[in-house]
Amino acid sequence: MKLNLLLTGNELMAGDIIDSNSSMIAQRFAPFGWRVSKKVTVGDDMDELCAEIRSLSEGADVLIINGGLGPTVDDLTAQAMAKVAGVAVREHPEALKSLEAWCERRNFPLTAANHKQAVLPEGCDILQNTRGSAVGIAMTHKGCLLLATPGVPSELDLMLDNAVLPLLEQRFDHGFIRTLRLGVFGLGESGIQEMINRELGDWPENIELGFRASMPVLEVKLTCRESVDPAHLAHWRARVEALMADHLLGEVPVSLPSALLDACKQKQLSLCTAESCTGGLIAAQLTGISGSSAVFQGGIVSYSNKVKMKQLGVEGRTLERDGAVSEAVVRQMLGGALSACDADVGIAVTGIAGPDGGSPDKPVGTVWIAWGGLDSMQAIALCLPFERLAFQRWVAALSLDLLRRQVLALPQLPNIVQRFIKH
Amino acid sequence: MKLNLLLTGNELMAGDIIDSNSSMIAQRFAPFGWRVSKKVTVGDDMDELCAEIRSLSEGADVLIINGGLGPTVDDLTAQAMAKVAGVAVREHPEALKSLEAWCERRNFPLTAANHKQAVLPEGCDILQNTRGSAVGIAMTHKGCLLLATPGVPSELDLMLDNAVLPLLEQRFDHGFIRTLRLGVFGLGESGIQEMINRELGDWPENIELGFRASMPVLEVKLTCRESVDPAHLAHWRARVEALMADHLLGEVPVSLPSALLDACKQKQLSLCTAESCTGGLIAAQLTGISGSSAVFQGGIVSYSNKVKMKQLGVEGRTLERDGAVSEAVVRQMLGGALSACDADVGIAVTGIAGPDGGSPDKPVGTVWIAWGGLDSMQAIALCLPFERLAFQRWVAALSLDLLRRQVLALPQLPNIVQRFIKH
Repeated sequence: MKLNLLLTGNELMAGDIIDSNSSMIAQRFAPFGWRVSKKVTVGDDMDELCAEIRSLSEGADVLIINGGLGPTVDDLTAQAMAKVAGVAVREHPEALKSLEAWCERRNFPLTAANHKQAVLPEGCDILQNTRGSAVGIAMTHKGCLLLATPGVPSELDLMLDNAVLPLLEQRFDHGFIRTLRLGVFGLGESGIQEMINRELGDWPENIELGFRASMPVLEVKLTCRESVDPAHLAHWRARVEALMADHLLGEVPVSLPSALLDACKQKQLSLCTAESCTGGLIAAQLTGISGSSAVFQGGIVSYSNKVKMKQLGVEGRTLERDGAVSEAVVRQMLGGALSACDADVGIAVTGIAGPDGGSPDKPVGTVWIAWGGLDSMQAIALCLPFERLAFQRWVAALSLDLLRRQVLALPQLPNIVQRFIKH
Repeated sequence: MKLNLLLTGNELMAGDIIDSNSSMIAQRFAPFGWRVSKKVTVGDDMDELCAEIRSLSEGADVLIINGGLGPTVDDLTAQAMAKVAGVAVREHPEALKSLEAWCERRNFPLTAANHKQAVLPEGCDILQNTRGSAVGIAMTHKGCLLLATPGVPSELDLMLDNAVLPLLEQRFDHGFIRTLRLGVFGLGESGIQEMINRELGDWPENIELGFRASMPVLEVKLTCRESVDPAHLAHWRARVEALMADHLLGEVPVSLPSALLDACKQKQLSLCTAESCTGGLIAAQLTGISGSSAVFQGGIVSYSNKVKMKQLGVEGRTLERDGAVSEAVVRQMLGGALSACDADVGIAVTGIAGPDGGSPDKPVGTVWIAWGGLDSMQAIALCLPFERLAFQRWVAALSLDLLRRQVLALPQLPNIVQRFIKH
């Protein structure tokens, strides 16, 4: 099946919004073995839209048009499709019914602007929108199936599952491609690539190996046709997993906070945090995950020295002697948080996020991390050469991983830490 | 100037990465009055690349090609440009020098893979890459200026400023468009649009009024040619600002945490947080901003009731009587945080982020927010119909704004809160 994609919207051309819809479409189609060949984006201009619909439908089996189905005068997709097909637009009874139902649910009157959304190319079918007011449009032009879909991502999401994919599955061959995604932290893309080249030279042709780099967790993708023997896939999955070893977090969806929460749950350990330079980011990442309350007790954001002393019991003379960014202070912070939150294990961090506050001895990017319980406390000093927000994200990522490793009795440090150790 | 954009990369077509480069290019070009007419994305395929370079350069003054300049066999941009122009590729002395300098800086040997990055179309000029190994390429094909730029966003960013924009400024007319961006919170796009239609019917033609919706802060954009009289622009800016009134945060870059920090700084007030359902997100947003330590003292993430009692002094009998999500508890949390952190004002939140934990009386989405100082404490109950992460972001946004309003003695509530008040 040859598939093209046309995106429309002045806000896309102006760069005011970043298009995530085409990525959503590509990823949702991948399991069927369907790939987008070409993607074109134009503004809300009738002539350009018509020209692109003509050109992209030529020689293609399917053209998905995204955007331009809204109620405003800028929304031209229905008229452009009608123009290209040489038919009129008229009120579509089924679309009108869907629109009326949408207005009723929201207790809105049906405005003239919204009514426009029921005026569609003659003879077209509609694709139900279970969330928004814009129905989708399906029609055939010179042997190419044209599918118009809404630009609002949450509406597109539902329409893909409820209407677009079922329709395409019915009409076109598909392979049922299986993609296995493994989350890895602490190796780096080139590091993984090298290890794979070195250790898996006998990699089979019927499983495609890919990567998806996304800070901080990298995804290793194993993709194959469904006809591939599951035992064969399992064997190669196990080989990859053995190679990633302690850097493997698990099958996606997985994240550093979810991996740590799972590890703590498994070992029945409760968890707390004491954060200075990350200012609550570690706690926020943990509590972003539903069910975290079973493990995470709480945390102290000790931004000022006063809070470090009052809430965490850090000693004033230690702060004076060693400074807030020091091993003695980070250990006292962790001890204080464990006792304040009645937790078994925890993470404490204190560092210099910048841009100000550095010194020759402790430059911007310096951080002390302590992790573990009262009897298993470890600490390390790192220097992370990133600007403020990236620095905070890296400190959060590394400290979550360091505690995960201790809880699961894995090797102490991820490979990547070597780059950052402060000497 | 007619400008087209060609993006290349299998990872873009597969949806493994979301393209932010085209947005960056469009936004960087906007001040010059240059707009991208059409944008095409294809995978790393020689025939498709050549066909698109031919077709997109026809009738255009400039074609920017993004991606495909890397060291791997997938990177085909230089060869495709040479093929279209009918010239050979060969080692480019200046490009080689730049590559050698890059290797030296990183203390890397120059590999054969990297050496490929100095093999460019005969007769082309290079665009310096001050960050990465891939130099850009400039050449003319049938009257269209072809500019090849790297796909790595941070490298593209620098190359646009250092090489692309200076070159285009030299060669093409430009208008110097001025865009003023005002950050607004608490009105909603349709609300603003209605107010503007109602109150600013006499809006002048030489200033374009636009919006950029981005949760939670919306941007109102005033765009005009530089030739427009500054007093005229200032007048209409003042009209918009007066209309937005207490919902105006200030000129972009601005955010809810930065607006609150500025307000506190102005009034010389120190700040703290006590967070249950947001789990540290409010503190993390505040401390994401450099200079926040001058205002923000610290916070308590009181996820468990034990931490609420021990660290914030919430009374056990209040928790028992009213439950953790209640006015009495949120007020005790704020009082406890103000005293624990020695702060003048603060924010406390306790709610049910879901998906579990709701009851008929207090459904998922219920939240109590308290804000202010010991003598100025206010509290409100809201019900926010969003899933967990969006719920947490909304609670953070609203509570930051509520305290900003109190500190600046503005009307108590943003317009949007009306939708969420729990009755």
